[in-house]
Amino acid sequence: MPAAAAALSPSAFIDLLVAITGPRGVITAEGDMAPYLEDWRKLYRGHALAVVRPASTDEVAAIVRLCAGAGVAVVPQGGNTGLVGGAVPDGDARSILLQLGRMNRVRSIDPIDYSMVVEAGCVLEAVQGAARDAGRKFPLSLGAEGTAQIGGLIATNAGGIHVMRYGMMRDLVLGLEVVLPDGSVLSELTTLRKNNVGYDLKQLFIGAEGTLGIVTAASLKLFPPLRATRTIFFALPSLADGPRLLSLCREFTGDAVESFELIPRQGIDFATAHVPGTVDPLEGRPEWTVLTDISGRSDERLQEDLDHLVEAAFQAGLVTDGTIAQSEAQSKALWLLREAIVEGQRLAPGIQIKHDVSVQVSDMPGFVHAASEAVWRIHPDALINPFGHLGDGNIHFNVTLPAGSPPDAVKGVSEIVYRIIDDFGGSISAEHGIGRLKAVAYAARCPKPRADLAARLRKAVDPKGIMNPSVFRPAR
Amino acid sequence: MPAAAAALSPSAFIDLLVAITGPRGVITAEGDMAPYLEDWRKLYRGHALAVVRPASTDEVAAIVRLCAGAGVAVVPQGGNTGLVGGAVPDGDARSILLQLGRMNRVRSIDPIDYSMVVEAGCVLEAVQGAARDAGRKFPLSLGAEGTAQIGGLIATNAGGIHVMRYGMMRDLVLGLEVVLPDGSVLSELTTLRKNNVGYDLKQLFIGAEGTLGIVTAASLKLFPPLRATRTIFFALPSLADGPRLLSLCREFTGDAVESFELIPRQGIDFATAHVPGTVDPLEGRPEWTVLTDISGRSDERLQEDLDHLVEAAFQAGLVTDGTIAQSEAQSKALWLLREAIVEGQRLAPGIQIKHDVSVQVSDMPGFVHAASEAVWRIHPDALINPFGHLGDGNIHFNVTLPAGSPPDAVKGVSEIVYRIIDDFGGSISAEHGIGRLKAVAYAARCPKPRADLAARLRKAVDPKGIMNPSVFRPAR
Repeated sequence: MPAAAAALSPSAFIDLLVAITGPRGVITAEGDMAPYLEDWRKLYRGHALAVVRPASTDEVAAIVRLCAGAGVAVVPQGGNTGLVGGAVPDGDARSILLQLGRMNRVRSIDPIDYSMVVEAGCVLEAVQGAARDAGRKFPLSLGAEGTAQIGGLIATNAGGIHVMRYGMMRDLVLGLEVVLPDGSVLSELTTLRKNNVGYDLKQLFIGAEGTLGIVTAASLKLFPPLRATRTIFFALPSLADGPRLLSLCREFTGDAVESFELIPRQGIDFATAHVPGTVDPLEGRPEWTVLTDISGRSDERLQEDLDHLVEAAFQAGLVTDGTIAQSEAQSKALWLLREAIVEGQRLAPGIQIKHDVSVQVSDMPGFVHAASEAVWRIHPDALINPFGHLGDGNIHFNVTLPAGSPPDAVKGVSEIVYRIIDDFGGSISAEHGIGRLKAVAYAARCPKPRADLAARLRKAVDPKGIMNPSVFRPAR
Repeated sequence: MPAAAAALSPSAFIDLLVAITGPRGVITAEGDMAPYLEDWRKLYRGHALAVVRPASTDEVAAIVRLCAGAGVAVVPQGGNTGLVGGAVPDGDARSILLQLGRMNRVRSIDPIDYSMVVEAGCVLEAVQGAARDAGRKFPLSLGAEGTAQIGGLIATNAGGIHVMRYGMMRDLVLGLEVVLPDGSVLSELTTLRKNNVGYDLKQLFIGAEGTLGIVTAASLKLFPPLRATRTIFFALPSLADGPRLLSLCREFTGDAVESFELIPRQGIDFATAHVPGTVDPLEGRPEWTVLTDISGRSDERLQEDLDHLVEAAFQAGLVTDGTIAQSEAQSKALWLLREAIVEGQRLAPGIQIKHDVSVQVSDMPGFVHAASEAVWRIHPDALINPFGHLGDGNIHFNVTLPAGSPPDAVKGVSEIVYRIIDDFGGSISAEHGIGRLKAVAYAARCPKPRADLAARLRKAVDPKGIMNPSVFRPAR
């Protein structure tokens, strides 16, 4: 925990901030700060000495130096779309919130090098668009892409729906510019594909949730655009067939599966009941379905591949029904259903409990079965909605309890789910991170050598403990 | 530097090692130790108290604990195919050499999960074979694959000829088991595709060249096998067309370029003059050529793609001639030429100077031009052979000076090449690492924030300084 800013009064501290960024960059009125101090899910609301909005890396460095000297903590925030409370300060108002949205320039883009350099405050959708305008593709894609910023996506090692083919954010970063906790700047905005010169320091900051430094810019990998893509919706005879169908899809398409999403009956029911415009694509209410995008060199070839794939999948008994979108509109309707699962469950009556867990892909059916049984044993009336990135073994195992369930039931359900995750050697945070929400749950199952090493690293990089101090820390 | 083993005599220390591994696991006779104590290029020869060959992770942990207590350094070694002297101890005989070759089990393989778990001593070729036997592909491929071991490939973040498509070793690792410098075991042999639970600690050890701990096992990503591949040999009008041709190949094949290697006239001349069985594939002695493997869903489709690609490449003026291998034998002959460049230059008269450098892909022609001019300005009779992984911007910019050149000429040439690399924001070690060979050159150009952070990390993970202490350290 940072030492108190004994030598500096709050107003003198604010004056020094204003001297760095100008008055535009410092917000101190409670009402103006409020939207930044509450997380998207409204689980956390904090206090801050100021919300600071720097316009350059030099300003970030000067702010961090000032805070390091004054013993003021720094909580970085991008688009504030995180799901684990990692981007809002705690309640003691001994920190600033550093909001990077003004640093939103695309610094460069090189189509022949398949790379671009962007600032941390660039919104993901804008980055995708800039790549597209240059004839290239930046493949990261997720629900919050219209708001989420590159810095936050790096700090949380974001995933999304294209991880199968292109990897997580970590796999898309070629280089970083980072302001370290002492205010020095680690400037490694390289676009090199290979660079074996000792420790790959950028890896430290990816997924560190702002605890080791402030990512101010990044160089990113680009890809050629896809020539043809088709969306397919399959019904499975049983969940156990999901991983086998995925493997078949990979083998029959030259490993061109862009995404492979599990949609359970419960998810379809939530979506169609509560989100206008969603439709159930198949007859007969199949219990388990899969939504997959597969790419190819041309529409003709892709159609030929998919014909072979569908034939093989039926012959192998891995699917009972299916539909291939015949237009952009049909594809969009299928993806709308997938995206509407979240909103549908949010609007459904009852208490909603979210989990972002992963197991190895081939274990996913076993995990869903075991976790569902365990939850139903305690709550026979729970609705279980395990949906999401089957291609990555990452399931959002979400549960609805009846309204009026006892207050400790939410925690109890999570404990059950996490215990089964432990049995399968899985992860209690596949893509959302630990933040503040999962700090206690993770600390309880983190092996000692890992916890010790992580603590030593944090101390070595941030000896004063000023960087996002509430994150990963169950004690606060 | 480790403290002297004051409390323990050398023979008592050896007895304790033998108690851990049994007599089979400890070699102390000078003659028997000799092959382990010299690097592959015969640039470094060291001394050791013993060569220790443990058979299990528990044995490695006990050995490291013993060494930590006795203040004896630990130098890990895999297949001893490294090119920067990172796997042999220095001359003061205050270390053991820890050779991991006996830990060579494939612990598990799961084709549906596209993953396998192997021990550090597994030879790369054996790992490729085990994956193939399970109907899968482990894509890392490099010249030393018949000898190089997984542990060393991870410690050096190895590259090779398939990086374009599948990434470096770092991109292929899902989890690691590591013995830390205090003898505790970080056990993270997960096969999860997504696992955002704080710092991704495995990243620390990949490319750390054994300075932070001993990799004892790894879980690895697998891929579906390729259905069809063709090898093509193109002649370029000029080197400047190389990156543009690469981009065209990516766009015309659905990003299915497996490798993209630059072969200069000088490299062909070295190979055909000195390596029996190599032939120049094209007439007219083109100055710059490219060897590329491209994959596809079937032979017919691939042929169709390549027909379109070749037509487009000629139309765009990016190639002047070319040949597509029509058989496995023709493909092998082209790759033999590529591999023979190294041996051909080794056997050529004169002094051979190797560089393993990278720039961003689109800068590669500019770099080769500038570096060649700069070398020729000082050594007009130098032969320049810049070959290798153009697809990754990684060129082995090798130079031959006449026999009898002054002794400081070698260092002088490297200084010239590295200065031009600095001008282009490139790397003086693309894929081989720093080891001992490049420690001085790298320290001279490592920015202070990077050097400080790296030193703090090393100290935090290995406070006693016993892990491969000569590596990355210009002072020793």
